[in-house]
Amino acid sequence: MASGQLYGLGLGPGDPELVTLKALRLLRAAAVVVYPAPESGDSFARGIVAQWLDRGQPEIAIRFPMQPGPPPAAIYRAAAAEIAAVLDRGGDVACLCQGDPLFYGSFAGIFAELAERYRVTIVPGVSSLTACAAAAALPLVQRDAILSVIPATLGEDALARRLAAVDPGDGAAVIKLGRHFAKLRRVLERLGLLDGAIYVEHASLPSERVAPLATVDPASVPYFAMALIHPGESTIRPDRGASG
Amino acid sequence: MASGQLYGLGLGPGDPELVTLKALRLLRAAAVVVYPAPESGDSFARGIVAQWLDRGQPEIAIRFPMQPGPPPAAIYRAAAAEIAAVLDRGGDVACLCQGDPLFYGSFAGIFAELAERYRVTIVPGVSSLTACAAAAALPLVQRDAILSVIPATLGEDALARRLAAVDPGDGAAVIKLGRHFAKLRRVLERLGLLDGAIYVEHASLPSERVAPLATVDPASVPYFAMALIHPGESTIRPDRGASG
Repeated sequence: MASGQLYGLGLGPGDPELVTLKALRLLRAAAVVVYPAPESGDSFARGIVAQWLDRGQPEIAIRFPMQPGPPPAAIYRAAAAEIAAVLDRGGDVACLCQGDPLFYGSFAGIFAELAERYRVTIVPGVSSLTACAAAAALPLVQRDAILSVIPATLGEDALARRLAAVDPGDGAAVIKLGRHFAKLRRVLERLGLLDGAIYVEHASLPSERVAPLATVDPASVPYFAMALIHPGESTIRPDRGASG
Repeated sequence: MASGQLYGLGLGPGDPELVTLKALRLLRAAAVVVYPAPESGDSFARGIVAQWLDRGQPEIAIRFPMQPGPPPAAIYRAAAAEIAAVLDRGGDVACLCQGDPLFYGSFAGIFAELAERYRVTIVPGVSSLTACAAAAALPLVQRDAILSVIPATLGEDALARRLAAVDPGDGAAVIKLGRHFAKLRRVLERLGLLDGAIYVEHASLPSERVAPLATVDPASVPYFAMALIHPGESTIRPDRGASG
């Protein structure tokens, strides 16, 4: 019997309407549905498509412990073994990924375990990057501009060095803010970039918020928040509401 | 009468199945459909959704001359005037954008002309960036890695300086290759980055091609081609077919 196929399905930033037709078709055709989840509680990725999981497909939750640093390799290995068992029986497996599967996602860990042995198809999704730009109605980059995507998890000096290297006219997105927000704010202030910085959280969800970064309370910042930086543009754009 | 609303609809990289549910709904509800097009010939953006333009919606093609450099401001002003006339009559306008509207797209020019006077909603789309990574089955960036998106239209020295600044473990995507490919290849060779570089053209389309960059004939490279660079990773991944 031929092995099943593994699909890495990008589901977009959170609004179920930002799912693609292809991800929806492959999700509904899969024998088994897999998704990342916290140690206890609901999976964000599953929540995006919950309304379409009405056919009783078996589900596998890959539970990641809440801790800093990369997830333990043992979690990926155990999940890969469960997925491989389905593929070996000839069943297709849909692995649900918020945003895009290969843009800072946990899917890369699953992929690394299984890509040599099974057919894997990646379906790209709307990334948080463009979802945040859309929420802020702020062009990320145009023409010859360079875009840098920088995780706020870097050390303060590394973060400062990277942001200082962003030229006027270019753009930067600082991702994974959460508890790193206060550090980012200090760096932006030191570099003279605070006034033009835009803050976006929960892009595309009902709880979406867009604000000048300087006005944001560091204690309130979730992990899924992003800063959009455009050196040389001093005008703060007005707040904009949800992208309807 | 209330003005209509302008929608910037991201339609993804080319596969009609990579259109989102939201873009499809708003496209079909619009009074008028607008899209960029070459001086003569078909619009790529329109082609993505042509099968859903079966209701006789009036269409406006914004035709850009084939020339290097930014398009003349007069083209955006004239298009904005046509769009404004529809909005003033209360009609909603869907502006079709390949990829994502705010990621190196021509929509920013339309947006700049109309955002002060009309309600504008941006619907993010699957960008060429994540579509190319999916086609190559190559994680763009993971964990604390930094991603640089660099247009190949930069001068050779600027391109070399930017690529030399990409640290091992980080990633870069060089976009808009076309006639700039030979220049990029020279730079990559000089920096010792050629062997690990992956080339992707026409991601998500039937003509999709993924290959080691070193094997690509510069004369064959279209504008919609991208190079994925991961310094420090010397292994060339095998070619992979279309993402099915």
